[in-house]
Amino acid sequence: MKGNFTYCNPTRLHFGEDAMNYLVQELKAFGPVVMLSYGGGSIKKNGIYDAVAAALKEAGKTVVEDSGVMPNPTYEKVLEGCRKVRDNKVDLILAVGGGSTIDYAKAVSASAYCQEDPWQKYWVNQESPACKTIPVGTVLTMVGTGSEMNGGSVITNRKEGFKRGKVFGTELFPTFTILNPRFTMTVPQYQMVAGFFDIMSHLMEQYFAGTADCTTDYINEGLMRSLIHSSRIAAKNPQDYEARANIMWTATWALNTLLKMGKGGDWEVHQLGHAIGLVTDATHGMTLACVSLPYYRRVMHDGLHQFVRFAVNVWGVRPDGKSDEQVATEGLACLEAWMKEIGVVMHSRELGVTEENLQQVADAVLILPVGYRTLTRDEVVEILRESM
Amino acid sequence: MKGNFTYCNPTRLHFGEDAMNYLVQELKAFGPVVMLSYGGGSIKKNGIYDAVAAALKEAGKTVVEDSGVMPNPTYEKVLEGCRKVRDNKVDLILAVGGGSTIDYAKAVSASAYCQEDPWQKYWVNQESPACKTIPVGTVLTMVGTGSEMNGGSVITNRKEGFKRGKVFGTELFPTFTILNPRFTMTVPQYQMVAGFFDIMSHLMEQYFAGTADCTTDYINEGLMRSLIHSSRIAAKNPQDYEARANIMWTATWALNTLLKMGKGGDWEVHQLGHAIGLVTDATHGMTLACVSLPYYRRVMHDGLHQFVRFAVNVWGVRPDGKSDEQVATEGLACLEAWMKEIGVVMHSRELGVTEENLQQVADAVLILPVGYRTLTRDEVVEILRESM
Repeated sequence: MKGNFTYCNPTRLHFGEDAMNYLVQELKAFGPVVMLSYGGGSIKKNGIYDAVAAALKEAGKTVVEDSGVMPNPTYEKVLEGCRKVRDNKVDLILAVGGGSTIDYAKAVSASAYCQEDPWQKYWVNQESPACKTIPVGTVLTMVGTGSEMNGGSVITNRKEGFKRGKVFGTELFPTFTILNPRFTMTVPQYQMVAGFFDIMSHLMEQYFAGTADCTTDYINEGLMRSLIHSSRIAAKNPQDYEARANIMWTATWALNTLLKMGKGGDWEVHQLGHAIGLVTDATHGMTLACVSLPYYRRVMHDGLHQFVRFAVNVWGVRPDGKSDEQVATEGLACLEAWMKEIGVVMHSRELGVTEENLQQVADAVLILPVGYRTLTRDEVVEILRESM
Repeated sequence: MKGNFTYCNPTRLHFGEDAMNYLVQELKAFGPVVMLSYGGGSIKKNGIYDAVAAALKEAGKTVVEDSGVMPNPTYEKVLEGCRKVRDNKVDLILAVGGGSTIDYAKAVSASAYCQEDPWQKYWVNQESPACKTIPVGTVLTMVGTGSEMNGGSVITNRKEGFKRGKVFGTELFPTFTILNPRFTMTVPQYQMVAGFFDIMSHLMEQYFAGTADCTTDYINEGLMRSLIHSSRIAAKNPQDYEARANIMWTATWALNTLLKMGKGGDWEVHQLGHAIGLVTDATHGMTLACVSLPYYRRVMHDGLHQFVRFAVNVWGVRPDGKSDEQVATEGLACLEAWMKEIGVVMHSRELGVTEENLQQVADAVLILPVGYRTLTRDEVVEILRESM
C-alpha cells in the first residue's frame, strides 16, 4: 500500500429484519419537515411505503411527497426536487428506494441552495458544495450502487446528452441507512441480477488497477468470493434470506470508499455502461455486464499480474504448469460462466445497442486516463461492437 | 449473515508518510487545553514527540504533559490522569503511542467526570458513560490493538487482581487518528512481532465463532492472507514500507467492529492471555501466541467446518482426498509454522509462567460462555500447562 489518504465514513447503518425499528429514533434527530423521495410507486404495493409513513407519523413529521424518481434520474427531476426543498423548507430528505433514488436525493441536497449552475459546478467541474446542504437518510430497497454509504450521485442530463457521476464528500454521505434484506426481495429477478453484477463491477473496477501489494485488494477478493457464493444461491432462490443479507452487506462495502484506499481505480466499464444507459435507458447493471468481458479481455495483458491473482484467489484456478496468460484467461472464463449462471444480459443488442446508434453511444463514453490502459476512441467502438 | 446490528464508525483516519500534516488542522477543532499522553519516553528519542509538540504549538494549544503510561496501563494511572484532566480543564486527550496509551486515554476520558466508581461501572458492570467525556485523538506508533478506531479499553487493576476489557460506544472512539507506517518502524523487533500476532489473534477470535455463511468472514480471510504475506516480509526486513503499511491498515480493520457484524466472537484466547499478562507483565501479543495453538487444537472438533475453511481459504491447504480433521489439522500446522517463521514466543514458560504460578494465572482467567465451546476450569489449567 502506497501513498497518503484520509478515510472517514460516518454513515450509521441499521442492518437486519428489524432495522426499520430504528427509523423513528433516527428521524427524531432532524427538524419537522421531511421530503419523502421514491420511485414509481412499487413501495406502495409491497408495504414499505406504509411502514415508512407510520414511522414519519410517529416521529411527528410533516411529509413532502416526492415520487417519480426514475431509474436513471434526470437533472430536470433534480431541479424539480430542489424547488420542493426550498418551497417547503425541508429539513431531511428521506430516500426510499435503490441507488437511483439515493443518488437523486444527494443531488437535490447539494443543488437546492446552490448559487451557481449545479450541473456545471458538480457534474462537469467536479467541485464541492459551498452552500447549505440538506441531510439525507435512506431506506434501501434494492442493492447494487452502494449509494447508501457513500457520496456518489450519478445524474443524466438529457439536454446536454450526458450521464455523469459526481462523488461528494462526507457532508453528503447519508446520515443513516436502514438495510433490511427482506425489502430487497420485492425487486424483480431482472433488477436483482442486474444489481448483483453492478456490485461485482464495483469490486472489479477497483481491483483492476495498480501493481502495489495492497491489503485493500485482499479485502476485495473476500467480498468477490462472498458475492459469487451468495449470488449463485439467490439467483436460484431469491427468498434465501442469508444469501440476500450477505449480498446486501457486500454491496455496501463494495463502494463505500474503503476499497479505493491506498490504490487507484479503473472505472472505464462504468463509463461504457453509462453511455449505453444514456442512449438506451437500459438497466445500469446489465449495461456493465455486456461490456465487461470485451473490456477486460482487451486490457488483460496490461495488468496481467492482477488478472492472474484474480483467477487464483477469486475463482480458485490452479496455476500449476500454466502460463500467466492461460491462468488469467481461465479466470475471465470463470467470470463469464458465473455471469451466465446468474443470468445477466450478455449482449448489448438485447439492451437496444444497434449499428445505427453505436457511434452515438461511443460519443457519450468518457475515456478515463486511469486503469491499466487508456482506451482510444477506436477501441471504444470495437469494445461496444464486441459487446453486441 | 443473520441477526440485527448497527454499524457506525466515525473515526477519521489520516494514513501515510505525510499523515502528520493533518494534525494541526485536526487540533484546531478543539478547545485550548490538550493533555499529551504517552509512554516511557521512546517518542522523545525517535523524533515523534518533537513533531507532535510542533503541531501543538502551531495550533496554539496549552499542553498538559502526561507521560509514563505503562504497557499494561493500571487503574491507578487512570485515576492520576483523571485528576490532571479535571485540574486543567482538558479539552482533548492526544494519545501518542500504541494500544496501551490509547486504551488508557479512553479510560481517562470516560472516568474523569464519572460520578460513580469507574472500575465498577465500566470494567466490572460493563455500563456506558453517563457523564461528560473528553474527545480523544491519537498518533499511532505501534500497531496491534486496533484501539485507534474502536472503543476498546483494557485496564489492569492490581488491587483487585484483574486485567479487564471494556468496549465503549462510538462516543469514545478516537475522533481522529494519525497513521504513519514509518512511526511503527521504531518499535523493537520483539514488540513488532508481538503486535503481528495480536492482529492475527483479533482476526482468528472473530473468525472462529458461528456457523452461518457470513460476508464478514470472507473479509476476515482477506485480512488474514494480507497479514500473513506482509508479516513474513516485515519479520525479515522491518524497514519494508509497503509491508509495514499493509500491516498497519490490516490491524485497524481487524478490530474496528466491522468483523463482528452479523456474527459472534470467541475471545477466550484473549482471556487466557490477559491472565498471563496480569501475573507476568509479559507483552500482550506474546501471551496470546503461547495459548493459541493449545486452545484451537482443543476446540477444533467443535467448530470443524470453520477450521476446514480456515485451512483452505487462508492457508491454501488442498482438501482433495483428506478428511475434514486432516484438513483442519493441516491448517493449524500452517499457523504454527508461520508463528515460528515470524518469531513469536511459543512457550509461556519463557514469559514467566511456572508450575508455581499456574493456579494464580488460572484464577485470573475469565471463562466466556461464547465461541464453539465453553471451557471448564480444568481445561483452562490444561491449556495453560500445554502452553508452557
